[in-house]
Amino acid sequence: MNIRNEHYRDVVAHVFAAAPFIVDMGLELGQCGPGYCETGLDVSPRHLQQNGVIHAGVLTTMVDHTAGAAGTTLMAEDEYLLTVEFKVNLLRAVTGGRLHCRADVLKSGRRIIVVESAVSEVSGEKNVLLAKGTFTMSVLKKDE
Amino acid sequence: MNIRNEHYRDVVAHVFAAAPFIVDMGLELGQCGPGYCETGLDVSPRHLQQNGVIHAGVLTTMVDHTAGAAGTTLMAEDEYLLTVEFKVNLLRAVTGGRLHCRADVLKSGRRIIVVESAVSEVSGEKNVLLAKGTFTMSVLKKDE
Amino acid sequence: MNIRNEHYRDVVAHVFAAAPFIVDMGLELGQCGPGYCETGLDVSPRHLQQNGVIHAGVLTTMVDHTAGAAGTTLMAEDEYLLTVEFKVNLLRAVTGGRLHCRADVLKSGRRIIVVESAVSEVSGEKNVLLAKGTFTMSVLKKDE
Amino acid sequence: MNIRNEHYRDVVAHVFAAAPFIVDMGLELGQCGPGYCETGLDVSPRHLQQNGVIHAGVLTTMVDHTAGAAGTTLMAEDEYLLTVEFKVNLLRAVTGGRLHCRADVLKSGRRIIVVESAVSEVSGEKNVLLAKGTFTMSVLKKDE
Repeated sequence: MNIRNEHYRDVVAHVFAAAPFIVDMGLELGQCGPGYCETGLDVSPRHLQQNGVIHAGVLTTMVDHTAGAAGTTLMAEDEYLLTVEFKVNLLRAVTGGRLHCRADVLKSGRRIIVVESAVSEVSGEKNVLLAKGTFTMSVLKKDE
Repeated sequence: MNIRNEHYRDVVAHVFAAAPFIVDMGLELGQCGPGYCETGLDVSPRHLQQNGVIHAGVLTTMVDHTAGAAGTTLMAEDEYLLTVEFKVNLLRAVTGGRLHCRADVLKSGRRIIVVESAVSEVSGEKNVLLAKGTFTMSVLKKDE
Repeated sequence: MNIRNEHYRDVVAHVFAAAPFIVDMGLELGQCGPGYCETGLDVSPRHLQQNGVIHAGVLTTMVDHTAGAAGTTLMAEDEYLLTVEFKVNLLRAVTGGRLHCRADVLKSGRRIIVVESAVSEVSGEKNVLLAKGTFTMSVLKKDE
Repeated sequence: MNIRNEHYRDVVAHVFAAAPFIVDMGLELGQCGPGYCETGLDVSPRHLQQNGVIHAGVLTTMVDHTAGAAGTTLMAEDEYLLTVEFKVNLLRAVTGGRLHCRADVLKSGRRIIVVESAVSEVSGEKNVLLAKGTFTMSVLKKDE
């Protein structure tokens, strides 16, 4: 996929450092490149719901923010993305541990970008899929 | 819709009071009854993303948790719900204010419950729809 | 919602009469107005799947085409809609009878339209919900 | 993934041969194995919509039926699947040609199966992705 802003890594870094909800949650930016992004999260008690498993809202925030970052790697300097809709399947519940998320752009159009994003629990060499989602994003001009 | 646990309000209250991620976010339980639930949230800076609008993860947590509570009103004492999947359309962005969410059970089956959940910004008598989602939940037995 | 093409009924009628897959299926256009559309279908053996219930593809085609028509009522003369994505919950199965579908525009933006569409079995005064979906559509210019 | 019915290929073949809507549409069963299924379709004029591109209902029927067949490969003799919900992103439109669909089970649970299904246009060695969907299915007992 084509890069249209050579400083895209700085833009992606800003998307993490300047978003209070993301900083507060503890979501960490990992690798990123044209059309993909990876993130990590250490699950702590504040991420849980009443029955002791991680809240769907945490998993969703992780797949959503990582998907947005993956799409952002392909934007021109005067463009930004807005999530129009997404769908997430929650496949397994966890109570703690280290989570890894990877998002990949499935289709990059002039007006619409579609991204897939999946989060797994990583433990040694094991990698268990927890949730997978598909995101539709609208490409907007900053001056519109 | 039929109530199968006369103490369902206590169960719903517990779903809010005992979920650290929800308490931390500031989500407040409002009215609930058989097949529906309402919640409120005062948007504060920590709920925002890098561009100053409320994070999709916050809106999604709100519609998800309220949907789960709406379904919980219909559970028997030995049952609980697990979200299998959901889809959310984000319709408008806001930077602050008071949010109201209402979730209604669309279909209550023996094994599967489908819930619709929508969040609006309320300002005086105005009510502007921000996001709407559909949730599929699995009915599980506590002793299984 | 605002009409931007006073001949919108003719455009909608064309969407039904000129689509071979729709004519072949037997989908009938009912009422339509700004932001909504209704359709009907008599279920026949050719609409069924191997276990004798109506095929998900038939229900989906019905909610999709009706949703597209509802959005079309709001288009200007030089615009048309393309479905970007949709999600459907199948709530009940039927083996025959008369189906009714109604689609309503939830949000009409300059670039994106979101439509809800639901199909029911009608029998006398009874109306049983079979499927409900949410559709995201892209507004395109004919000359682009 | 584990086979629980050694005659699963016969069951899958029946799912195609005995479904009138599928026979009528011309959907052909290709390869299948534990947790996956492939199908093919030659696009003809009756599959089109008013603007000459293939109808979303055709693409959806293809991904849905192939997804159901992929899940069916994992069922025991006394079990069957019912689609609870699905979401499809339509990525590109085509006016004709040969379509290929492949569905893979993403998670096979005791009660819920999640399947991904994608359809491409094949032309020589080129393979262009047209649509991709995620399906949630409920595992049911025939005698229930």
